[in-house]
Amino acid sequence: MNVLIVYAHPQPRSLNGALRDFTVQHLEAAGHHVQMSDLYAMQWKAPIDEHDAPQRNASEPFHASLDSKQAFLAGTQSADIAREQEKLRWADTVIFQFPLWWFSMPAIMKGWFDRVYAYGFAYGVGEHSDTHWGDRYGEGAMSGKRAMLVVTTGGWDSHYAPRGINGPIDDVLFPIQHGMLFYPGFDVLPPFVAYRTGSNVDAGRFAKITRELGERLDKLATTAPIAYRRQNYGEYDIPALTLKDEVATGQTGFAAHIV
Amino acid sequence: MNVLIVYAHPQPRSLNGALRDFTVQHLEAAGHHVQMSDLYAMQWKAPIDEHDAPQRNASEPFHASLDSKQAFLAGTQSADIAREQEKLRWADTVIFQFPLWWFSMPAIMKGWFDRVYAYGFAYGVGEHSDTHWGDRYGEGAMSGKRAMLVVTTGGWDSHYAPRGINGPIDDVLFPIQHGMLFYPGFDVLPPFVAYRTGSNVDAGRFAKITRELGERLDKLATTAPIAYRRQNYGEYDIPALTLKDEVATGQTGFAAHIV
Repeated sequence: MNVLIVYAHPQPRSLNGALRDFTVQHLEAAGHHVQMSDLYAMQWKAPIDEHDAPQRNASEPFHASLDSKQAFLAGTQSADIAREQEKLRWADTVIFQFPLWWFSMPAIMKGWFDRVYAYGFAYGVGEHSDTHWGDRYGEGAMSGKRAMLVVTTGGWDSHYAPRGINGPIDDVLFPIQHGMLFYPGFDVLPPFVAYRTGSNVDAGRFAKITRELGERLDKLATTAPIAYRRQNYGEYDIPALTLKDEVATGQTGFAAHIV
Repeated sequence: MNVLIVYAHPQPRSLNGALRDFTVQHLEAAGHHVQMSDLYAMQWKAPIDEHDAPQRNASEPFHASLDSKQAFLAGTQSADIAREQEKLRWADTVIFQFPLWWFSMPAIMKGWFDRVYAYGFAYGVGEHSDTHWGDRYGEGAMSGKRAMLVVTTGGWDSHYAPRGINGPIDDVLFPIQHGMLFYPGFDVLPPFVAYRTGSNVDAGRFAKITRELGERLDKLATTAPIAYRRQNYGEYDIPALTLKDEVATGQTGFAAHIV
């Protein structure tokens, strides 16, 4: 299996660095092929801007989505963006590893999504009609590929429990897992989350974390993905894109979009 | 009133640029003082890294939170970070304006939070004991200040409705409003959201949007904030930080944290 790891942490000598190294070794020992996008090491450019479409008509105002579409279709995107898209095409599974900062990913990884997910590549794909509102939420360029988050948090597991103050971890991660991964077609595996990593993680805890992570890596190809509802298969009114009355009747919120 | 606008959009000739200009003019016409952090124009550095603590001990591995704490306490942070913190101290109200990209803020603004929100400034503040788990979620450096999001989305309002496919807008914005704004003490006003702005917004719609935005700006000081529950006032078990059984009994998810 081809596994791409998109990784965002500023310091190799860290828990995240150690977990990344463990992941690479574990996957390669099992015979998988691994590519790594180490965003800090690559000095990944985070903000999308006019330089990402270098051959655009500079007399017109830059438009992030329309210019990304033209550059994508014309093959004139920034080389760093095109390389990441090529890695995504190559991959069977993509692991996104990052520390949860302010209840989301580090800025440098957000900039990976903002830039690599070009119009025509990750969104704005497929026909828009009364029965099919684009190839998205269960269809799209990433169809058939799997994705999994590997996340560390300073907060405790109870802080992310169903009644925890930070909100349930599944809801905190929904905009990423559903909005960034399921949207272009990934099958999204349940996340691997290591809590309470702000203070030192001693050898015993590290052994426990890597044992559990190793088990998840061993089952990358077989773990059942989160059962998000697909957009174009009869459960949503189109184009309102609200759940039909008979689906998850009376339910609202993120959980209603899971079977 | 002193109003800071933190603004992230790559193109001044855009709907966001026009809404920003409208906001400045409207507030100044009403006698308010306005400062602007135009992150793209400032070429704001998004990724937090070792250069943000220039006097750190370079023989030790960089640690984003601990190094930010030391640099904050010693007054040796990057000048751009210190300037933004000074603007926050000056402000009575902060408006964060951005297009919703992939269900969150643009990378450049995430990098504003990652870097400006130093340990000791926006988190890691106050005593941690059995009755008080830091000055956060309703207390902290931003206490007494108000914050409001001004957001544009390509998606339609129905897509962000309670049963819409993107998730309810209040839930999509919860990690920002509760996690980034209420956390360090801001009173968070309901957001101003302009939907379906991917295609051209004609003069009639623009007039409608600015009329509604103007009404919100006129009521910045008087609008009731979102009634998020405060952490240290008896509704949460400490240090588990889960809601006590008798609070929002049986409820889970983001909404349980609103009175």
